[in-house]
Order: sequence, then structure tokens, then C-alpha cells
Amino acid sequence: MSRKPAGAAPLGEFEFIAERLEPLARGFPGALTLGDDAALIDPPPGRQLVVAKDALVAGVHFLEGDPPASVARKLLRTNLSDLAAMGADPLAYLTAIARPGTLAAAWYEAFANGLEEDQRRFGLHLIGGDTVSTTGPLVLSLTIIGSVPAGEALLRSGAGVGDRVFVSGTLGDAALGLRVLQGLAADDDQALYLTDRYRNPRPRLKLGRRLRGVASAAIDVSDGLLADLGHICARSGVGAEVALASLPLSDVARGMPGAVAAALAGGDDYELLFTVPEAAADGFDRTGITEIGRITAGERVRVTDATGREVDVQRRGWRHF
Amino acid sequence: MSRKPAGAAPLGEFEFIAERLEPLARGFPGALTLGDDAALIDPPPGRQLVVAKDALVAGVHFLEGDPPASVARKLLRTNLSDLAAMGADPLAYLTAIARPGTLAAAWYEAFANGLEEDQRRFGLHLIGGDTVSTTGPLVLSLTIIGSVPAGEALLRSGAGVGDRVFVSGTLGDAALGLRVLQGLAADDDQALYLTDRYRNPRPRLKLGRRLRGVASAAIDVSDGLLADLGHICARSGVGAEVALASLPLSDVARGMPGAVAAALAGGDDYELLFTVPEAAADGFDRTGITEIGRITAGERVRVTDATGREVDVQRRGWRHF
Repeated sequence: MSRKPAGAAPLGEFEFIAERLEPLARGFPGALTLGDDAALIDPPPGRQLVVAKDALVAGVHFLEGDPPASVARKLLRTNLSDLAAMGADPLAYLTAIARPGTLAAAWYEAFANGLEEDQRRFGLHLIGGDTVSTTGPLVLSLTIIGSVPAGEALLRSGAGVGDRVFVSGTLGDAALGLRVLQGLAADDDQALYLTDRYRNPRPRLKLGRRLRGVASAAIDVSDGLLADLGHICARSGVGAEVALASLPLSDVARGMPGAVAAALAGGDDYELLFTVPEAAADGFDRTGITEIGRITAGERVRVTDATGREVDVQRRGWRHF
Repeated sequence: MSRKPAGAAPLGEFEFIAERLEPLARGFPGALTLGDDAALIDPPPGRQLVVAKDALVAGVHFLEGDPPASVARKLLRTNLSDLAAMGADPLAYLTAIARPGTLAAAWYEAFANGLEEDQRRFGLHLIGGDTVSTTGPLVLSLTIIGSVPAGEALLRSGAGVGDRVFVSGTLGDAALGLRVLQGLAADDDQALYLTDRYRNPRPRLKLGRRLRGVASAAIDVSDGLLADLGHICARSGVGAEVALASLPLSDVARGMPGAVAAALAGGDDYELLFTVPEAAADGFDRTGITEIGRITAGERVRVTDATGREVDVQRRGWRHF
């Protein structure tokens, strides 16, 4: 928690840390009230630590007008989603905040409140980080630390030919929510539901835990279903087939134009996408889970229609958005 | 290592990760070749993990024209310096890179080379992170993970009245180096030495290790000697006295205007500032170490002249720079 901005920080860096961030460290002994050069972690016995780091940029990953508490939630929850995809339990996090002078103190206040609520909800603590000035847009980075029983982490690399492919929740809502915020027509109920799905990811931590010892591979859907299934396939050296008709769409999404494309390639869903070997596929709790396909030989991800014929899908992820 | 930039990344995010960052993860089993949602760390037995996170912004913490490899070194070494200040040994790191489209591919290439050289030099590996697009200046964040024998970490909070105050190396060189880069007159030899000190911090990892069980408190000098001594005093509930005549200045710094002010308040030194109880103060290896003062009662940091009278020092750290 020390760095020297060349310009004066808008709020006073030290005051912001002392008044708003230090309270978030209380209750975690090794955080040393954020007052030291680094935080100390006592590794839980018999467990491996799981570490992920993500960054969000204003105007790129969230909209400048998004409520600050929802930006805080998105920052924390997208990282919690990475833990969920590994089957890990959250432990602590660190933030790096590059702050433009143009954002009001009230923005950071509300942002810190958002972190505070969510860290209580998900049972983890802020243990360190850095706050600096920038001449550009707000850049937020978060490092999350969790733990998993040694050897039980869910990886992307374990999918085998014949495994069944599952996904939690519904797909495409968040991408449609972003489009609504950008001007796509929707009635009030639709807009409320979809923008909430965009702003407030629900990391599937409980599901991730349940999948230890069950799933052969797992990932969270952030880039888009096909892109993320492609990541599993690339790491596992396999291909996959997804049945278009099986995609789980919410009732609201079903009423919107572009819902299927959003489900296939929209991203930001933060649902868990995972594979389960045939032998275990009927023996686990499938509440809220949809089977959408199979792992195949080869290396391609194919989408098939009701007759089993391949559908030509152009939008395979954010790179072709 | 997954996030969805709304705009196209300049180099191709996936290609940059695959070609330049993944090689930096080789040799660390839990990094999973950066291909998973998070990295796995097997905690070394009997040790606590030490975690710190810093951010650097182009135009604020380094100059736009700084060589990319030296920016990489500064990013990694300022974080290594945080580990040194805790008496910790480096283990791994994660990066978040918010990239403007305006920087050429060659810049990132040279930046990755700088990381590669330094991670070999200091014995740690890249294990994860995130690469995103930004419309603003380059923002770099690094999370460092080290370890320390359980219970032996050096903290800021242990200084006691009567403890002696020491600092490693020389002070003020880096701040003078920055001023030279900004136009302060210097001959070639001076400029070379001072700008090297600014661009290439030398994290005092070996010294930090040696100070376990010796120092009562420690910090690295990043904000400036007086500001950082103030951090120790605030956390320890004590004051301090620094003898102006004892400040370790390099021969080069001694020949420059503003050298004493730079030593007191310039910052970016990344030397270790630490306190040692009277009883232990003569029993440790003081090679390259200078005694500069004493811990006192009260809560102020005072600077005294040769007669013991307090000197009025206006520039107490970056906030009044």
C-alpha cells in the first residue's frame, strides 16, 4: 500500500485508504490493517492457494455511468467467478485503483461501500493493494486469493471424448443487458432484469465446490459460450458439439432480438461451463444446470440444429463482435 | 487470464499472452501455462505467504519515453522491494496490463523481455494476470507473492523507544535521476549513474532476509525517507530523530543541487529503512548500512543538525512535492 503519485491525488490517497479501505481489512489478521508493505497469509492446512487477477477499464468493461457500487460488485464477482470455475473457496483480495482526478469523492465512497457489502456476502477480506493517480480513465485491478483442497482444483484441461457438457443458469442475458444500456429497445421489466444480469454477476461458488471430483473440466463463461468452450477444448485437446436447441435462455431473453447470438457469443454470463464423464453424468445434483452438448474427437466446437446438422455460427466470441 | 475487451486489442490479446507471457510461466507447475482461470500455489511448509500489489501509470510513475525493459524492471522490482521490506523470499507474480492502442507491438515485446530477464535474476515466475485495452495511458499492475518463515516477517509496527534507525545504500539518487530526465543539468557520468538509480531499483532481498530476528521494524523507502520513517512511527506509536549529517549520499548526489532534500523526501530509493533494538545494534553485519538516528517517544519525526537542534524541513514526502 505505498506508491508515490507525481500529482496530488483527488481525495488524498492516504485518507481514502485510511477511511474507506482499511475498515475492509478488519477481521483478517494478516492484512496488518493495510499498513504494511505486504499482507501475510497463513495457508489453510491441506489446501492449495488459488490466485487470479483481472482488470476493468471505464468505458471498456463497464460504462462510465454505471453505479459505482455495481462496478465494485462486478470487479469482485468476476474474480470470484474465476475461483468458482476452479472449485475454490474465497479467502482475500487486493485492489489496485488508478484514479482520474475527474471522479468525485462520492464515487469512491459508493465504490468502497459496494466492496464492503460484497465482501461480507461472499466471506472474504481486502488485504492490500495500491491507489494511484492517472490522467486516463479509471482502471481497476483486483487480485483474488482462494483455496481448494490439494489436488481437487477444477481445470480446463481434463475434458475427455464422450464427456457431457453442462452449463449453469441462463446464457445471453448480460450481453443483452449491455445492449439495452446502449439503446436496444426493451420494456421496463425486461430492462431491469437484463441490466441487472449485466451489472451483477452471480459467481457460482457453491456449484464450483459441488463439482470437485465430478467435473472433468470447468471454466466460467466470460468471453462467450463458444469461445470459452473453445478454451476447454484447446487445453484438453478435444472438440465439442453444442445443440442449439438446448441453450438455456431466460424467458426475458427469449423475447429479445439476437438472444441466441448473445447466448452463443455474448459473454459476461459468469455461469459455469463444465464437462462430466458419462459415468458420473447422472449422479450429481442438476438443479439449475442444463446439458448442452458433448465432447468429441477433433479440435472444433460445432453447433448443431435439431436434425444434427452443423449450423454456421459467425460470432464466436468477442474478437468478432 | 480471461476478460473481454470491447475494442480490438492492438496486438491480439490472445497472441500476446500465448507468445510472450506464457513462456514466463514455464517452470512453475501451478501456473498451468496461464491457460486456466487461476493459478495454483502449493504453500511452502512452515511458511506464511506474503502478498503485495502495486500499480504504475505512464506519465505518472514512469516517463512515456522510458525504455520498456526498464519499465518492466521497475514494476517488478518495486514489488520485490516490498517483499524485501518484509524479509520475504520471492515466489511468483501476476500482472494486469491496460494497453493503449497507440503503443507499438515492439514496446510490449521489449517489456516482456525485461520481465523475463528479471524473473530469472530474482528467481520467480509469472503465474497469471490479465491484459485489457484502455483509451488512456498504459497502466501496469503487479501482484507479487513471496513467503517467509512463519512468524518472522518484518513489520512496520515493532519499533520501540531507544531503537537505532538504519538505512541501506544511499538516498536521493533516484529522485535526482528523475530530475535529470526532466532537464536538470548534469554531466554524462552523473546522468548515467542517477538515471540508472531511478530506472533500476535494487530490491534489498538479501538484506531483508538477514534482518529477520534482528530488526524491530522495517519498510522500503518509496515515498521518501521522512514519509516512510513516519509510517514506521505511526504504526509503532513512537517518534524518531534523524541526524542530517548522517544521511548517506552518493558521491554523485553530493555534487548536485537539492541532494539533501532529495535524500529526505525524494523517494523511489527502494532502500531498506529499519530499526534495531539497542541490544542487537552492534551484533549484525553493517556492510552497506548507515545509522541515521534513533526512535524517540512522541509521534514526530525530527531532523537535527550537528548541534542537535531541530532543522525545519518543509518537504516531507510526495504530498508536498
